[in-house]
Amino acid sequence: MSSTAGQVIRCKAAVAWEAGKPLVMEEVEVAPPQAMEVRLKILFTSLCHTDVYFWEAKGQTPLFPRIFGHEAGGIVESVGEGVTDLKPGDHVLPVFTGECKECRHCKSEESNMCDLLRINTDRGVMLNDGKSRFSIRGQPIYHFVGTSTFSEYTVVHVGCLAKINPAAPLDKVCILSCGVSTGLGATLNVAKPKKGSSVAIFGLGAVGLAAAEGARIAGASRIIGVDLNSNRFNEAKKFGVTEFVNPKDYKKPVQEVIAEMTNGGVDRSVECTGSINAMISAFECVHDGWGVAVLVGVPNKDDSFKTHPMSFLNEKTLKGTFFGNYKPRSDLPSVVEMYMNKELELEKFITHEVPFSEINKAFDYMLSGASLRCIIRMEA
Amino acid sequence: MSSTAGQVIRCKAAVAWEAGKPLVMEEVEVAPPQAMEVRLKILFTSLCHTDVYFWEAKGQTPLFPRIFGHEAGGIVESVGEGVTDLKPGDHVLPVFTGECKECRHCKSEESNMCDLLRINTDRGVMLNDGKSRFSIRGQPIYHFVGTSTFSEYTVVHVGCLAKINPAAPLDKVCILSCGVSTGLGATLNVAKPKKGSSVAIFGLGAVGLAAAEGARIAGASRIIGVDLNSNRFNEAKKFGVTEFVNPKDYKKPVQEVIAEMTNGGVDRSVECTGSINAMISAFECVHDGWGVAVLVGVPNKDDSFKTHPMSFLNEKTLKGTFFGNYKPRSDLPSVVEMYMNKELELEKFITHEVPFSEINKAFDYMLSGASLRCIIRMEA
Repeated sequence: MSSTAGQVIRCKAAVAWEAGKPLVMEEVEVAPPQAMEVRLKILFTSLCHTDVYFWEAKGQTPLFPRIFGHEAGGIVESVGEGVTDLKPGDHVLPVFTGECKECRHCKSEESNMCDLLRINTDRGVMLNDGKSRFSIRGQPIYHFVGTSTFSEYTVVHVGCLAKINPAAPLDKVCILSCGVSTGLGATLNVAKPKKGSSVAIFGLGAVGLAAAEGARIAGASRIIGVDLNSNRFNEAKKFGVTEFVNPKDYKKPVQEVIAEMTNGGVDRSVECTGSINAMISAFECVHDGWGVAVLVGVPNKDDSFKTHPMSFLNEKTLKGTFFGNYKPRSDLPSVVEMYMNKELELEKFITHEVPFSEINKAFDYMLSGASLRCIIRMEA
Repeated sequence: MSSTAGQVIRCKAAVAWEAGKPLVMEEVEVAPPQAMEVRLKILFTSLCHTDVYFWEAKGQTPLFPRIFGHEAGGIVESVGEGVTDLKPGDHVLPVFTGECKECRHCKSEESNMCDLLRINTDRGVMLNDGKSRFSIRGQPIYHFVGTSTFSEYTVVHVGCLAKINPAAPLDKVCILSCGVSTGLGATLNVAKPKKGSSVAIFGLGAVGLAAAEGARIAGASRIIGVDLNSNRFNEAKKFGVTEFVNPKDYKKPVQEVIAEMTNGGVDRSVECTGSINAMISAFECVHDGWGVAVLVGVPNKDDSFKTHPMSFLNEKTLKGTFFGNYKPRSDLPSVVEMYMNKELELEKFITHEVPFSEINKAFDYMLSGASLRCIIRMEA
C-alpha cells in the first residue's frame, strides 16, 4: 500500500483553461480512486492530434478547464473498491476507450466498442459519480476521454488500463496508447495483407506510418504512401514505404494512378487522413475480386461517402476500424510484446522529447508538422 | 465417343428474335466444340431474372437473335481439343461466369472473378474464334453469357462447366447454376453469420430466399425478411425467415425499424434487390462493432451509394459478392453435395414446371411474380 492511498494527492498538471490557449502548469488536487477506478502516476505521455483537435475546440462543444492527454505510460499508485486486476506498482497504459469485459461488444470476438467505456469526448467526468477527480482550490477541472495524462497523477477507470510487461520502457511503449496501435492494428487486424501483397497508405502522419509499419511486419512487398506533402516521403521510407504518390502531381484521380501502378489496384488500402475524398480514393484504388479498404481517419460530421455500388459487387470490401480493432485490456499487452521482441519498431516514431514544463513545445512541434511523436517526460 | 461427335447437331432451341417478344421454337444447327469447348445436351433448364432482363433489353445494348438461358443441367456430348477435365457422359452445370484456373483471380483464394471467363453480357460469341456455334440456315444466332441453355444442345467453354455427382437429379440441382448459389453463397461464404445470430434479408425473391436458406443452414436464430410485397412473407417462412418487415408499413427508414427490433442492429444483412435505397438500408441496419452487410443485387449503372463514413469507423463492414463467391468449377460440386446430404433444400424453390415447348409460360410466371423457379423440361 502506498502512503498516499486514500489521500488527495497534490501534483503538477498542465491545464487547458481556454480553447487554443497554451496550457498552464498548475498545482492540482487529485482525489482518490472510487469504485472500479485506479489512480496512477504518469511517467511519460505524448501528444496526439486528438488532444490538439479538442484543445482547439473547433466544431465541438468546448469543455474547459480541462486536462488533456491520452497517450501515456504510468504506474498504479492505488486502486478503488472492486479493482482486482491491478495493484499498486503495476505498469499500465491508459487508453481513451475501454473494455468492461461484460457487455455484448466485449464478449464479441469481433468488436472492441465497449458499451460502457467506449470513447466519449463530450464527457469530462468519471462514470462512478459523474464528477471530476481533479480540482484547483475547489474548482473542478474536467477530464478528457477518461485519461487526462497531462498530470503527474490521474484517475482512470480500470477498464481503460492495459497492464503491461514491467520490463517494457514506458518512454517508448507509451505511444501504443493510441495512434500507433490504431494504425498498426488497422493493417494487422483489419486489412490483413498477405505476404508479398501491395498496400496503399493514405496519409503519412504517425497513424499512417504505423499502418505502413504493420504492412512491413505483414511482409507486404509494395507499400505505396500517398500524401499531399512530399516532404513526408523521405521519412516514410524508414517505415517500409517503397513508393510514393502525391495526388497533386497528377491530373487524374489518385485511385486511377494507383490502379495503373499495380495492374488494376492494390490488394489492400488504409486511409489515415479523415478526408472524405481520400476515403473514396482508398476504396476505389483496391483491386476487384479481393481488395480490402480500411478507413481509420475520422471524417467530418457532414461528410457523405459516395461511390458506385458496382465496386462492391466486384468483390471489393470496405471496412472501418476503431483503435485498430484492439481490445485495450486484452490485446494491448501483446502489442507491447511485439516491441519487446523487436518485431515492432517504436523509436522511429519518436522525433522529439521535452520535459513536462515545456509541454507547449510539443503542441508547437505538432502544429508545425515537425513531429511524429513528442515524448513528454513528467520527471525533469 | 458419341456418334454425333465432330458433326453439326440439328436440334430444337427457343430463339429470341426481338427484345421482349415471345421466344420462337426453331430448329438450329449447333456446331461441334472447338478448342477448350464442350458440347452438351441440356436436360433441364430454368429461368432466371437475368434472362428476362436481357430479353427485355431495357437499358442495355440489344443483341438479337439470341438464345438465352443460363441455369441448367446437362450431359457432355463431346469435347473439343485440349479439354481433359470432362468427357462425354459427364454430368455438368453450365455457369454464366467461368474459372480458367490460370489467371490471378483463379489463383487467388479470395476471388472468383476470372479474368478470362468473367461474365460478359455484351458478348454473343465464343472466345476461341469470335463466332457463334448456333445458326439457322446459315444465319448466326448469338450466345448469351456463354451458356445459352434454351437449346437441346449448346456449346460452352470448359471453364464454365462444373462437373457434378452423376447421382444428383439434374431437374433439381440445375437451379444451382445461378440464383440459388448466388444467394446461398452470399450468406455462407461472405456474410458468414454465426450460430444464434440475427440476419436481415432484403428482397424475398429466389436469390433472397436462397440467402435466407444460407442463414438457416448457418444456424441464425433470427432471420428478418424485408420486402415491399407482403404476399411473399408466407412463402418465406419455408426458408427459415422468422420475422417480416414491409418498409411501406412504417414512416421511419427501415434501417431504424430493424435497429429497434434488434437492440441496435442485425449481425448480418444481405441485399438481394439491386435497389440503391435497399443497399443503403442494408448497410445502415447492421450493428456497430461487428455488423457485416453484403450486397448481391445488381444496381443501376447511374446509382450512387451514399452513407455517413462514421458507420465504417464504428466497425461496420460492407462487402459485395458475385455468384456468392463460389468458384464455378472448384466449388459448385460441393454445393450439389450439400443438396445430396439433405443439408440444403432445393425443392421449395421449384414452384413450376413446363415442357420446353411451353417455355414462354415460364416468362409469364416470372413476370407476374407467381414463380420462384420454373423448371423447363427439354424432353417431353
